Amino acid sequence: MQFYLDGFRTGDPLKTPEADKAPKASDHVDVAIIGCGPAGLTLAAQLAAIGGMSVRIFDKKDGPLEVGQADGIACRSLEMFEAFGFAEKVLKESYWVNEVAFWRPDPSGSGLHRADRIQDVEDDLSHQPHVILNQARVHDFYLEMMENSAMGLVPDYNRDLAGLVCDDSAEHPVTLTFDCLDAPGQQEVVHAKYVVGCDGARSKVRAAMGYALKGEAARQLWGVMDVLAVTDFPDYRLKCAIQSAEAGSILIIPREGGYLTRLYIEMDALHGDERAADRGVTAEMLEGKARAILAPYHFEVKEVAWFSAYEIGQRVCDSFDDLPSDIRDGDIPCIFIAGDACHTHSPKAGQGMNVSMADTFNLGWKLAAVLKGRAQPKLLATYSEERHAKAKELIDFDRDMARLFSEKPKTAEESAQFQRYFQKHGRYTAGVETTYDASLIIGGTAHQDLAKGQVVGKRFHSAPVIRLADAKPLELSEALTANGRWRVICFADASDTGGPGGKVAALCDYLLEDPKSPLMKFGRDGEDLDAVLDVRAVFQQAHRDLDLFTMPDLLVPKKGKLGLTDYEKIFCPDLKSGVDIFDIRGIDRAKGAVVVVRPDQFVAQVLPLDAYDDLGAFFAEFMM
Amino acid sequence: MQFYLDGFRTGDPLKTPEADKAPKASDHVDVAIIGCGPAGLTLAAQLAAIGGMSVRIFDKKDGPLEVGQADGIACRSLEMFEAFGFAEKVLKESYWVNEVAFWRPDPSGSGLHRADRIQDVEDDLSHQPHVILNQARVHDFYLEMMENSAMGLVPDYNRDLAGLVCDDSAEHPVTLTFDCLDAPGQQEVVHAKYVVGCDGARSKVRAAMGYALKGEAARQLWGVMDVLAVTDFPDYRLKCAIQSAEAGSILIIPREGGYLTRLYIEMDALHGDERAADRGVTAEMLEGKARAILAPYHFEVKEVAWFSAYEIGQRVCDSFDDLPSDIRDGDIPCIFIAGDACHTHSPKAGQGMNVSMADTFNLGWKLAAVLKGRAQPKLLATYSEERHAKAKELIDFDRDMARLFSEKPKTAEESAQFQRYFQKHGRYTAGVETTYDASLIIGGTAHQDLAKGQVVGKRFHSAPVIRLADAKPLELSEALTANGRWRVICFADASDTGGPGGKVAALCDYLLEDPKSPLMKFGRDGEDLDAVLDVRAVFQQAHRDLDLFTMPDLLVPKKGKLGLTDYEKIFCPDLKSGVDIFDIRGIDRAKGAVVVVRPDQFVAQVLPLDAYDDLGAFFAEFMM
Ligand SMILES: Cc1cc2nc3c(=O)[nH]c(=O)nc-3n(C[C@H](O)[C@H](O)[C@H](O)COP(=O)(O)OP(=O)(O)OC[C@H]3O[C@@H](n4cnc5c(N)ncnc54)[C@H](O)[C@@H]3O)c2cc1C
Ligand SMILES: Cc1cc2nc3c(=O)[nH]c(=O)nc-3n(C[C@H](O)[C@H](O)[C@H](O)COP(=O)(O)OP(=O)(O)OC[C@H]3O[C@@H](n4cnc5c(N)ncnc54)[C@H](O)[C@@H]3O)c2cc1C
Repeated sequence: MQFYLDGFRTGDPLKTPEADKAPKASDHVDVAIIGCGPAGLTLAAQLAAIGGMSVRIFDKKDGPLEVGQADGIACRSLEMFEAFGFAEKVLKESYWVNEVAFWRPDPSGSGLHRADRIQDVEDDLSHQPHVILNQARVHDFYLEMMENSAMGLVPDYNRDLAGLVCDDSAEHPVTLTFDCLDAPGQQEVVHAKYVVGCDGARSKVRAAMGYALKGEAARQLWGVMDVLAVTDFPDYRLKCAIQSAEAGSILIIPREGGYLTRLYIEMDALHGDERAADRGVTAEMLEGKARAILAPYHFEVKEVAWFSAYEIGQRVCDSFDDLPSDIRDGDIPCIFIAGDACHTHSPKAGQGMNVSMADTFNLGWKLAAVLKGRAQPKLLATYSEERHAKAKELIDFDRDMARLFSEKPKTAEESAQFQRYFQKHGRYTAGVETTYDASLIIGGTAHQDLAKGQVVGKRFHSAPVIRLADAKPLELSEALTANGRWRVICFADASDTGGPGGKVAALCDYLLEDPKSPLMKFGRDGEDLDAVLDVRAVFQQAHRDLDLFTMPDLLVPKKGKLGLTDYEKIFCPDLKSGVDIFDIRGIDRAKGAVVVVRPDQFVAQVLPLDAYDDLGAFFAEFMM
Repeated sequence: MQFYLDGFRTGDPLKTPEADKAPKASDHVDVAIIGCGPAGLTLAAQLAAIGGMSVRIFDKKDGPLEVGQADGIACRSLEMFEAFGFAEKVLKESYWVNEVAFWRPDPSGSGLHRADRIQDVEDDLSHQPHVILNQARVHDFYLEMMENSAMGLVPDYNRDLAGLVCDDSAEHPVTLTFDCLDAPGQQEVVHAKYVVGCDGARSKVRAAMGYALKGEAARQLWGVMDVLAVTDFPDYRLKCAIQSAEAGSILIIPREGGYLTRLYIEMDALHGDERAADRGVTAEMLEGKARAILAPYHFEVKEVAWFSAYEIGQRVCDSFDDLPSDIRDGDIPCIFIAGDACHTHSPKAGQGMNVSMADTFNLGWKLAAVLKGRAQPKLLATYSEERHAKAKELIDFDRDMARLFSEKPKTAEESAQFQRYFQKHGRYTAGVETTYDASLIIGGTAHQDLAKGQVVGKRFHSAPVIRLADAKPLELSEALTANGRWRVICFADASDTGGPGGKVAALCDYLLEDPKSPLMKFGRDGEDLDAVLDVRAVFQQAHRDLDLFTMPDLLVPKKGKLGLTDYEKIFCPDLKSGVDIFDIRGIDRAKGAVVVVRPDQFVAQVLPLDAYDDLGAFFAEFMM
């Protein structure tokens, strides 16, 4: 974590002093975000972290969420929280899912037995664990980060979106009208360049665009409750999928703090127009059902912290922006939808919150780049293209998963099927399998062999390294903060020690001196050398065998208004730990590789170290 | 981290709701703490964490420290911060000292060369690193924790201690008078059962007891400055000890945030009554001196965040409480001094803040135990006995270190001497070598062989384990929170799986049922089973080979007003990581061991698993 670049300050270094904060945003904004759920807050946090534009975020609620909703945080989401700078808070408070147990009817014919117990996340899938924490706490961490930013961004609560009209010819083409719930009868009007509807499953933004969620009519009803309970069920502090012979299924999710537990309890399917509320589900009903499924184990609820009857449908919307899904070419969207507003799924794969956040992590840097004149507006169309494809995949996966979980297992083979499916899709639910297709911002795979473990289209896969200047062992992900910058990560060839004549130095020379280089073309006078492209290097030698001061200037750049040296661009393998990043990420030791990483941490390109023209051409496609 | 035992709450689980907070402390308090430095804040935090007594903390300053003073945080202090629950904040913000470089005059006769570069903390000395962070930030974390506690403890600033009188016959024997600096002419009077003077090197509490710091007359003057600077000195982001041929010595301490640096610059010794202020040291003088020492490297200060001329004397006071040092037997102290108030030393070993915090971490739980009627008042006399002996050791160490550092190295051999000394004393400066002598609360070493790596009198040495109930990999230290409780950690023998008939179960039976057991004698009706003695067990088997529900009740106790199960008492070795706690801590696999750990994490006893009488006798000596 770097700070004090522009001078020392007292107090919390992450808290921008009040004086720096932007004046309260006006009724004309660059971005208006509707909804303070995970999707809206991730977007707001991303824009606040990048800064330099005007943003407002609205919610009809009267304040932050306090309890309930989702709680599963996939490895990939924690990687993203790390990029936002609050992963350690989540890690500290949350329950860590280390193993999953599967319970099924005992072959003897009565009661349950533990059929299997597996590791939840396979080794080296991510350097972050899979954890469980009240969604409200995730909101809290986002809100704190937004408020601490230079933007000093605080949501406008009690604002219920009532109308949305679009006039393409205006500088602020979208006009939003809100009912002020704290001042009945009053309305507030806001004009925005871009609007993002993060307003959940009943999205008015989606409705305003005339879109509908499409999907299955048959909808599963699940009861969910957060309880403090006492039981003699042995695996109560493990995540458990329990299928009883006759009484149905239950999912036990241990929660933060050592005592709280979430239960997902299967209820009968909803029919026709029936809504979850029509069933009049009570906490007592859910407890009774849980007892029946868990029998002969004893189960006694001492306190219900929250409960809900949760309706599950696998649905998705055709487009995630205001361009029609068929003829998109050349047009620029200005209204977007994200999260539950454009896709819904069952809670069992634990994807609702995670996928919603992934949506807007994809969108945030693009909006910022366009607003700041760094990228051509056509970049914005890639949001719907990338995320819609992923949502469809998720819906399909989720449908299979939900069906398998709900089916009464007739044979041991059938019960085992769900378990195999669950195992196989661990990677998927961890969120690290997402692969974007080739596009404007995802290059080809011609050179994938140079870095087999950094797959083009997938998220950059971190690994342990040693930082050269201070010999600190850390994850390379520490270099990938969510500040909107592209990264060019140079993995040096075996002979290169960073000095003149090596390929890394030559690449840096190109970047710094060739008028055709993206740094020369897109960098601006007076800004830091790494403001647009953040160049980093990983060498193969042990850190004591390299000399910081023979490195190219671009890797020890002078920055900020004081011209201080940034010492945190160069890394070495953590040879002492025995885990060499070149080995575990399959980097070609003889040739090295350049890995181009998007601001949202996805690998955009793998190139040879001297493919200057390819590198330049890639950025020229969309940067400006 | 455990929470929600007595019911779910919304919001930050570490923040006790306002409603629970004690009313503003009155003019009659159990403990009055003078001084909000590291010593005073550690004590206040410890008492706040334990709760259930009235505490006030005073400082003559008008608010929290903002910049300057110490910055070195030893491994042992981080272990303590972990027990207080804020280590992760320090780890995130701080600079990590991974290696130390030694620079000396180049053998060629001009300039400097790097003579050596060593790992700063030897492997497995502690699971925590050695880090550097502005002392003010450490204060902030303490203040936040105190305010979040049920006590809602906030310092009284602008209170300058003016008088202290003692009347042994009163229930609140000490009367304190403060000048109110925010209301000139006004005074505030406070009556306290116990007073702790944490009021720094010019302590008025010490003076009121008629004590003086004794030590060397010759005092070294050091300039210290925190700067943002630019240099081509290669090891600027490593901790460096630099001895030039003619221009003197400098210590470079990289600081948090990647840009800030602290420099300790040697100045001439002070003579007679001369004070540091008399020299009129300026930042320019310090920068000039630094340039001279670092030549031929270029060094340019861009901003001075803080600087000071710092006077070093190795001094210590004869007693740390109001009992005379020669005849102490049987008497109970009620005034204590801690930190710089009773010992001062040079900053180069980085001990000032660390040792001050260790003082009051030693005192805090003792005061609480006596105030809550849990321990006999004679326990309080052990504070001065234990900490005075350690302060003397430190002073001796520091004197050698300061002398070696200041002496002009005449030969390569002489320069190398300092470096060897530095290396040898790494364990010492890490704070993990502190060994308390046998006493009321430190048992004999007759059974040390059962747990060779858990040395009686030293701090409990953590190691990685797996928690049985949720398969979470963690450090065993996670069980040692600073809540004032004694721990009885049972390391099972190889055959024991926790079931009836095993030695762990037998020990638990004794504790829970034998009227002579400390749990039966000192536990109170209506309180949790682990309120006084927190019993934990570590087994030798892999975690999947043990069954939680054959374990003795004491290891899965029902707690709190809801009777919820505490699942966090049982651990297994982390066999997958290959580091088996039984191996690395030298536990006798055939016999197992009981390790008794004090509330301040020091090992009080190592005993056989069936030494019930010894265990009972140990606690009977001081508990009540
Ligand atoms: C009651 C409930 C229970 C859930 N339970 C679970 C669960 O048990 N497990 C699980 O995995 N997932 C659960 N989910 C789903 C999970 O919380 C969502 O997938 C996730 O929150 C999606 O994030 P989002 O930001 O897209 O939408 P949301 O979190 O739904 O946020 C949408 C926000 O928009 C606001 N909003 C809506 N309309 C307007 C308007 N007109 N004007 C202004 N603001 C508006 C809403 O107040 C809300 O704050 C639950 C969701 C809900 C609503
Ligand atoms: C100016 C300064 C510079 C230092 N620089 C370094 C350094 O560079 N490196 C290093 O390792 N260590 C340094 N130290 C030492 C280090 O900060 C101390 O060892 C450490 O703070 C000791 O902690 P303490 O709590 O015992 O005392 P202190 O931190 O000194 O705290 C004592 C507190 O008591 C208060 N107090 C004093 N008298 C009264 C009174 N009459 N009434 C009410 N309150 C009172 C003071 O305001 C102060 O807040 C420095 C100390 C000082 C004072």
